[in-house]
Amino acid sequence: MPKFTRNLSSKVGLPPGTLLHVGDTRADKAYISVANYDGDGYTETKDVPLGDLKKLADMQGVTWIQVQGLTAKAIEGIGQQFTIHPLVLEDILHTNQRPKLADYGDYLCVIVKSLTVKAEIDDYEAEQVSLILGPNYVISFVESLVGGEDVLASVYERVRGGRGKICRLGADYLFYALLDSIVDHYFLVLEHLGEKIELLENQIASQPRPELLQDLHELKHDMLYLRKSIWPVRELVSVLERGETSHIKDSTVVYLRDIYDHVIQVIETVEIYRDMLSGMLDIYLSSISNRMSEVMKMLTIISTIFIPLTFIAGVYGMNFTHMPELEWEYGYPMIVSIMLFISLLMVRYFRQKKWL
Amino acid sequence: MPKFTRNLSSKVGLPPGTLLHVGDTRADKAYISVANYDGDGYTETKDVPLGDLKKLADMQGVTWIQVQGLTAKAIEGIGQQFTIHPLVLEDILHTNQRPKLADYGDYLCVIVKSLTVKAEIDDYEAEQVSLILGPNYVISFVESLVGGEDVLASVYERVRGGRGKICRLGADYLFYALLDSIVDHYFLVLEHLGEKIELLENQIASQPRPELLQDLHELKHDMLYLRKSIWPVRELVSVLERGETSHIKDSTVVYLRDIYDHVIQVIETVEIYRDMLSGMLDIYLSSISNRMSEVMKMLTIISTIFIPLTFIAGVYGMNFTHMPELEWEYGYPMIVSIMLFISLLMVRYFRQKKWL
Amino acid sequence: MPKFTRNLSSKVGLPPGTLLHVGDTRADKAYISVANYDGDGYTETKDVPLGDLKKLADMQGVTWIQVQGLTAKAIEGIGQQFTIHPLVLEDILHTNQRPKLADYGDYLCVIVKSLTVKAEIDDYEAEQVSLILGPNYVISFVESLVGGEDVLASVYERVRGGRGKICRLGADYLFYALLDSIVDHYFLVLEHLGEKIELLENQIASQPRPELLQDLHELKHDMLYLRKSIWPVRELVSVLERGETSHIKDSTVVYLRDIYDHVIQVIETVEIYRDMLSGMLDIYLSSISNRMSEVMKMLTIISTIFIPLTFIAGVYGMNFTHMPELEWEYGYPMIVSIMLFISLLMVRYFRQKKWL
Amino acid sequence: MPKFTRNLSSKVGLPPGTLLHVGDTRADKAYISVANYDGDGYTETKDVPLGDLKKLADMQGVTWIQVQGLTAKAIEGIGQQFTIHPLVLEDILHTNQRPKLADYGDYLCVIVKSLTVKAEIDDYEAEQVSLILGPNYVISFVESLVGGEDVLASVYERVRGGRGKICRLGADYLFYALLDSIVDHYFLVLEHLGEKIELLENQIASQPRPELLQDLHELKHDMLYLRKSIWPVRELVSVLERGETSHIKDSTVVYLRDIYDHVIQVIETVEIYRDMLSGMLDIYLSSISNRMSEVMKMLTIISTIFIPLTFIAGVYGMNFTHMPELEWEYGYPMIVSIMLFISLLMVRYFRQKKWL
Amino acid sequence: MPKFTRNLSSKVGLPPGTLLHVGDTRADKAYISVANYDGDGYTETKDVPLGDLKKLADMQGVTWIQVQGLTAKAIEGIGQQFTIHPLVLEDILHTNQRPKLADYGDYLCVIVKSLTVKAEIDDYEAEQVSLILGPNYVISFVESLVGGEDVLASVYERVRGGRGKICRLGADYLFYALLDSIVDHYFLVLEHLGEKIELLENQIASQPRPELLQDLHELKHDMLYLRKSIWPVRELVSVLERGETSHIKDSTVVYLRDIYDHVIQVIETVEIYRDMLSGMLDIYLSSISNRMSEVMKMLTIISTIFIPLTFIAGVYGMNFTHMPELEWEYGYPMIVSIMLFISLLMVRYFRQKKWL
Repeated sequence: MPKFTRNLSSKVGLPPGTLLHVGDTRADKAYISVANYDGDGYTETKDVPLGDLKKLADMQGVTWIQVQGLTAKAIEGIGQQFTIHPLVLEDILHTNQRPKLADYGDYLCVIVKSLTVKAEIDDYEAEQVSLILGPNYVISFVESLVGGEDVLASVYERVRGGRGKICRLGADYLFYALLDSIVDHYFLVLEHLGEKIELLENQIASQPRPELLQDLHELKHDMLYLRKSIWPVRELVSVLERGETSHIKDSTVVYLRDIYDHVIQVIETVEIYRDMLSGMLDIYLSSISNRMSEVMKMLTIISTIFIPLTFIAGVYGMNFTHMPELEWEYGYPMIVSIMLFISLLMVRYFRQKKWL
Repeated sequence: MPKFTRNLSSKVGLPPGTLLHVGDTRADKAYISVANYDGDGYTETKDVPLGDLKKLADMQGVTWIQVQGLTAKAIEGIGQQFTIHPLVLEDILHTNQRPKLADYGDYLCVIVKSLTVKAEIDDYEAEQVSLILGPNYVISFVESLVGGEDVLASVYERVRGGRGKICRLGADYLFYALLDSIVDHYFLVLEHLGEKIELLENQIASQPRPELLQDLHELKHDMLYLRKSIWPVRELVSVLERGETSHIKDSTVVYLRDIYDHVIQVIETVEIYRDMLSGMLDIYLSSISNRMSEVMKMLTIISTIFIPLTFIAGVYGMNFTHMPELEWEYGYPMIVSIMLFISLLMVRYFRQKKWL
Repeated sequence: MPKFTRNLSSKVGLPPGTLLHVGDTRADKAYISVANYDGDGYTETKDVPLGDLKKLADMQGVTWIQVQGLTAKAIEGIGQQFTIHPLVLEDILHTNQRPKLADYGDYLCVIVKSLTVKAEIDDYEAEQVSLILGPNYVISFVESLVGGEDVLASVYERVRGGRGKICRLGADYLFYALLDSIVDHYFLVLEHLGEKIELLENQIASQPRPELLQDLHELKHDMLYLRKSIWPVRELVSVLERGETSHIKDSTVVYLRDIYDHVIQVIETVEIYRDMLSGMLDIYLSSISNRMSEVMKMLTIISTIFIPLTFIAGVYGMNFTHMPELEWEYGYPMIVSIMLFISLLMVRYFRQKKWL
Repeated sequence: MPKFTRNLSSKVGLPPGTLLHVGDTRADKAYISVANYDGDGYTETKDVPLGDLKKLADMQGVTWIQVQGLTAKAIEGIGQQFTIHPLVLEDILHTNQRPKLADYGDYLCVIVKSLTVKAEIDDYEAEQVSLILGPNYVISFVESLVGGEDVLASVYERVRGGRGKICRLGADYLFYALLDSIVDHYFLVLEHLGEKIELLENQIASQPRPELLQDLHELKHDMLYLRKSIWPVRELVSVLERGETSHIKDSTVVYLRDIYDHVIQVIETVEIYRDMLSGMLDIYLSSISNRMSEVMKMLTIISTIFIPLTFIAGVYGMNFTHMPELEWEYGYPMIVSIMLFISLLMVRYFRQKKWL
Repeated sequence: MPKFTRNLSSKVGLPPGTLLHVGDTRADKAYISVANYDGDGYTETKDVPLGDLKKLADMQGVTWIQVQGLTAKAIEGIGQQFTIHPLVLEDILHTNQRPKLADYGDYLCVIVKSLTVKAEIDDYEAEQVSLILGPNYVISFVESLVGGEDVLASVYERVRGGRGKICRLGADYLFYALLDSIVDHYFLVLEHLGEKIELLENQIASQPRPELLQDLHELKHDMLYLRKSIWPVRELVSVLERGETSHIKDSTVVYLRDIYDHVIQVIETVEIYRDMLSGMLDIYLSSISNRMSEVMKMLTIISTIFIPLTFIAGVYGMNFTHMPELEWEYGYPMIVSIMLFISLLMVRYFRQKKWL
C-alpha cells in the first residue's frame, strides 16, 4: 500500500518550484561525474564541483553528466548553470513523480521509473531516473548513491569502453541508449514476477492456503504499480518516436521505435499477468470449495451410514417388557445381519452416486 | 447515498438563470474582502459593500475578490457589477454542480469541488469553489463562512506575505495558484483515504467481520464520489493547459501543465484504490469461507469419530437375551479397546488428509 | 422486460414512411392547441382544425403548436401543412423510438423520452416527446391526452404568464426551454430511484430476503432503461450545443451548454447508481453467507459438545456383565462430573476460537 | 458452439478467388429470376439462363436479379457477365463471411446475415444474403432455395404490386429496401429471444434447476452470435449513410439513416439482453444458495433440538447401580418435562433469531 | 506460463543491433533456397551460398529467397547483401518478437507468428516468420529446419506448379500470398481449440472434476497467447491495406483487404472463445455447488428422519423404575407405529418441499 500513497501530500501548501527532496534515499551529497567523448577519445572527470559543469558541457563531443544522489543544493546549482525551468527541477527532486516528458525548447526532460530486481530481498526496487537532453549533453539523475549498481551502468561501460555506435553518434543516441537500458530492465522485473506467479500458481493448485491469497494480492498490487509506472512511458516514447521534438535526429528515431515496441511488449505482459492473477483467484476459490465438499462428503457418508444403524440399536435397547425379538435365540445375529445389509446397501448407493 | 442525490431536483420547473442558493451551508451574509497587489505593494479592504467592488477592481495591479458564504443577493450584485452571465451566477449558487469551465470572452469561469480532510470528524468534506478570472482580477467564491480554514488560505498567506513570484505576476498566475492549491488538497484526502484502506485491509485479513464490509462499501462510495468530482477537473485543466483560452498567458500555461500532471496522478490513485477495494472483497469473502470451512472440519472430525463409536455402544446396549459377548469376562475392556483403536485409525486418516 | 422488447417488431414488412401509431396510449383524437406570442402579447387558440395550422404559424411572433395524443390522421395532416419528411412523421408515431436528432434544413426534429414520476404507482413513466423547430414555430408532440400533467406544463405556464426572457426571445429559445424542462424531469426520476436504492440498501444490510434481490434486479433494469433513454440525448444535445445547426441562435447556444451539463450529470448519476447496485449484490450475498455461517456455527457447537457426551452415556448404557464402574458407589456422579468437565473444556475452546 | 467454428478452415491452402461453396444448404441448382420495372410497368422473367442476364439488365428501368441457391457455376457466370471481382464472388459463395461492404467503383457489394425466426424449430436461423448494386440493377443472392420464405419476400411483393415509392425510384432505393427488410427481421429475432429470456427469468426465480443454467448459457451464446453478426452491419450502414459512396443518391441517404437508427437500436437491445442474462446468473446462484441455506436451517434446528434431549435420555439409560433419580416416583415425568422445557426454550431462541 | 515470459530478459544489457539468436529451435545451419519465376518459367536453386544471393535476386522476374533455420551468421550475411537495417536483423533473430511492420523505404519488413496444429502433440505450435519485401524479391525466414511442414508450403507448391495468378503477378503478390497462408492457418488453430472447448464444455456440464478447471485455465492462457499474437497483425495488415506503403501495388491492396477481414474474423472468434470460457467457469462452479447441495440434502433427510426416532428409542431405553408405558402389553408395537408415523410425516414434508 505505502508504495502508492507515500509522500502524496508532502508538498501541499508550498508554492510551485519549491525545491525540496521527497523520497526514500535521502542523500547527504550529490556525486557528480562528467564524461566527455567523441569518436576519437574519452575523458572522465569525477566529483566535479557545480561551478565547472557548464564549462565541461561546452567542450566538443558529447558530454554526459551523471548525478547520483539528489540534494536540493546540487539540483539548484545545475538548474542555474543550464537555465533549467524551476518546475523541472522540482519534479526531479520530488521522486514520487508520474513518468513525464517535457520539451522546453532548449532541452528535453524525461522522468521515468527504473525498476531493478534486488536478489537479496527477492523483490524489485523502483527508483526515479530523470534525463535532460540538451544540444550536445545529457544529464542523468538517479536517486541511489554511487557504488550501487544502477540501470545506467551497462551504458556507462559501453561509453567508457569506446565500443560501437554509441561513441560515434550524438547526445540523442546516448539519451536513447539510457532510456533503452531502463526499459530493458523492465523485462528482468517481469521475468522475476513471472517466476513468482508460476510458483504461486503451482502452490495454489496443489495446496491452497490462505497465505497464498495474501501473496496473490501482493502480486496484484505489484501489477497495479507496474502499470502505473509503465503506461505513461508508452505515451512519452510514442511522442519521441513520432519525431515530434527537434532534439532527436531522424537516424535515432528508428531506434526509439524499437523502445516503443519493447514498452508495448512490457505492457502486454503486465496485462497478461493481471489476467492470470485474476484467473488464479478462481482456481484458489474452487480449490477451497473442492476441499470443503470433500469434507462434507465424508461427514455425509459416515452420518448416513451410522445414523440409521444407531437407531436400530436404540430400538432394541428399549426396556419394554414385551419385545418378542429380544427373546428369540437368533435375534442378535439377525439384527446385526440386517445392520450389515443396510450399510452395504448404502455403500452401493454412494458408489452409484460417485461419492465414494 | 445522499451525497450523490442531494438537491438533484430542487430547481426543476424554474426558468434558467433563477438565482437560488442550493446547498448545505446556508449563509445569512456573504463576506467580501478585496486584496489588491502588484510587485510593489499590497492593500486589503475587508467587508466591502457590493457597490464598491467594480471601482476596486479597476485599480492598478491584480485584484483578488474573496467571497465567503453564498447568498443570492451578493451573487446578483457581483454579477451586475462585472456583467456576468446569469447562467454562471446560477451555477455558482447551485452548489451541487458538476465541475466545469466556461469561457465567456471577457472572463473565464471555473467551478470545482474542493476537498478537505476534517480531523474532528475523521472524514473529508466537499465544498464548491468557483473562480472567475477577468483581465486583471480574480473573484473566488467559497461556501464556508469566514474564519473556517479553507483551501485558499495558503495562497492568501503567500499573497499577503508578498513572497515569491505570485506577487510579481498577473491575475492568471493567481488563478493558477488557487487552482493548484485546490488540487494539492486532493492529495491530502487521498492520503487520508489511503490510510483508511490500509487499516481496513489489515482488519479484514486478520479478523473479518460483517461491519468491515460496510466500511468497505463506504470507501467504495467515497471513490465514486471522488471520481465524479475529479474526472471533469482533468478535462477542464486540459483545456486550460492546451492554451485554448486567451485568459492564460503562455508563461502560466507551463504551470498549468503541472496541475494537469497532478490531476492525472490523483485520478490514477483513485483508480488504484478502487482496484484495491475490489480485491479486498475477495479477501473478505475467502476469509469468511475459510473460517466456515474450519468450523465444518471441526464438526466433521468430531462427528466422524464419535458416530461409529456411539453406534458400537448402542449395539451392546441392546437388551437381547442371547448376546454372548455381554457375558465374556473381558468383553467390556475388549470393546473399549476396539473403540480406542477405531478412533486412533480415524485420527491418523485425518492427519493424512491434512485436516488435522 | 417488456419495456425493452415491446413493439420491436410491429412494423416489420411495411414500407418506410408508413404512418401507424405504435405505443401504449392509443388516443382516439389528437388535441391541438396553438399559442402565439411575442414581447407584447399572447393569444391562444384551442382545439384548432388541421387546416388552420399553417395560417396560424405564419403569424408574427413565435408560434407554439402543442399536439396531445397521437393519431395517424393528425400527424399526416400536420406533415402536409408543414411539408415534413414522411420518415419524421413515422418516427413521431412509432413511440418506441431511440432518441434522435435530424436536421432537414427547413426544420429540426428532436425525439426524446420524457420521464415523469407517478406518485400513485410509486414508479416513473416514460413517454415519447417529439419537437419540431421551424423558423418561427415549435411543434411539440406528446403521447398523453390533454388534462394529464406533462413535462411541458411548466414551460406553458411561463409562456402564458408572459414572464421572463422566454417571451422576448425566439422560437429556438422556446425549443430550448422545452428540452430543458424534459431534462430537468430526469432529476426527479433519479431522486425517486435514489431513494428507492437507499431504502433497499438499508433493508439488505439489516434483513436480507430473496425478495429484495428481485427488487435489486428491477432497479438494475430501470438503470438499463434510463441509460438507453438518456445516452443518445447526450449526443444530440452535444450536436446542438456545438452550434452545428443553423436553427439555434448563438445567444441560445450558451443555454444548451447548460442542458448538456445537466445531461452529463444525469448520466454520471445513472452510472454511479449502477455501481452501487452491483455493490449491493455483494452485500446481499455476504449477508446471506454470514447468516448461514452463524447457523452452521450453532450446529457445530451443539453437536461438538453433545456428541462426545452422548457417547459416554452410551458406553455406560452397555449391558456387559462385568463393568466395574457401574457398581462403584460414586460412579454416576463421577461420570456426570467428567461430562461437565468435557463440556466446559469445549466451551473454553470455542471461546478461544472466537466462535462463541 | 459449431455456429462459431463451422467451416472456419475449409478453404485453407487454396489460392484466393477459388470458387467453392462453403455452407449448409448446398443447392444443386441456382434459380435465377429477373424483374424489371419503372414507374409505368413491371415485367418478370423466371428461371433465366445465365447468358441472358446482361441483356436483361441493360433494359430501361430498374432490374432486380434474384439468385436463390448458391452454386459455383451460377456465381461464376454472373461474375463474367457483370465483370465482378473474383474476391467478391468467393465471398458470396463462402457463406461464413463476416458482414462486409466493398465499393469496386462500378458496383457496390454488401454481404450481411439475415436472421429469421423459424416457428417449427422454436429458434432463429441465419443465412447469408449478398447484394450487388450496379448503376441500374441490384443482384441479390440468398442461400435458401426458391419456395422457402425469405426476408426479401415483402420487398418482392411491394415491387410486384407496383405500390408506393419503390417503383418510382432507382436501383439504390431497391437496394435500401432490401437492406431495410433484412434489418427489420432482426427485430423479430430479438422479440423471440426477449420472450425466451422473460420465460427463463420467471423459471429461474420460481424454481431454479441446473437445466435452466444450460438454457441461460445457450442464450448467452445466441447473444454472442447476434453481436458478431450485427456489429459489422452498423459499420457498413454508417459508411453508406455518410454518403461516402457514389452509388447511393442523396434522396436515399436519408432513408439509410433510418436503417442506421434501427441497427443501433438492435445493438443496444442485444447489449441490454446480455446485461440481463448476466444478472440472471446471480439470481440463479442466490436462489440455489437460498435453498441450500433453507435445507441447512432445517438440519440445524432438528439436530440442535434433539441432540441434547437424546443425551439426557442416554444419561438415564446408563446402568449404574446407584442412580437415585431412577428410583424417584416422579423421576420419569420430571425428566420428560425437563426435555419439553429445553425444546421450548430452543424453539423460542430460533424464533428470536428469525430462523423459524 | 513460460510461453509468455520466456527469453524476456535474454538480451538486457547488450547494445541494440546485437545479432544473437533467441528462441527454441536452435539450428546449426540456415538452409537457403532461391526460386525465380515469371509468367514464363520457374528455376530453383537449393542450398545457395550467402555470396550468391544478391546476384540471384537481381535476375528478371520475381525472386523468392526461403531461409529455413536461423543462425546469426546467415542473417548477418543476408543483411549485408541486401543492406538491411541491423535492428531488422536483430528482430528476425530474436524470435520472441511482437508482430510488427517496418517500412525502411527500400524494403518492407513484416514479422508475425505462424501457428500450426501439431496432431502428434494434440496442440498448436507457434513459430516466428519474418518476411522482407523488396522491389522484386521476397525473403522469408522461418525457424524450423527444412523437411518439416511449414505454413508457407502451400504457396511454394503453387509457385512451383506455375498455377494461377501468383506466377503472373509481382513480388508484392507473393508477399500477400505468404501472409494470407499464415493467417489462413490461424483458422485451423481456432478450429482445433474450438473442438477442445466444445469437448470441455460437455465434460464440465456432465461430470465436473477439478482437473477440468486446470484444462479451462490452460485454454484461457491459450486465448491470451493468441490474442497477443494476432491483435498486432490486425494493425499491421490495416496499414498495408490502407495502401500506406509504396511496396504494395493497388491491384494487390484489394487482396490485402481480404486478409484484413480474415484477421478480424480470427480476433472476433478469439474474443467469443474467451467469453465462452468465462461462462464455463460459472457452469463448473454451479455444477459443483449443485452436487454439494445434493450431498447436503441427503445428509439432512437422513438426519432429520432418524434423529427424532433415535431420541424416542433413547427415552424408552431409560432405566427409570416407574415408566408405565414399558409394562403396557402393546407398548412396543405402539411406539414402533408412532415412529413409523413420524417418519412418513417427514417424508411427506420433504416431498412437499421438493427435496425428495
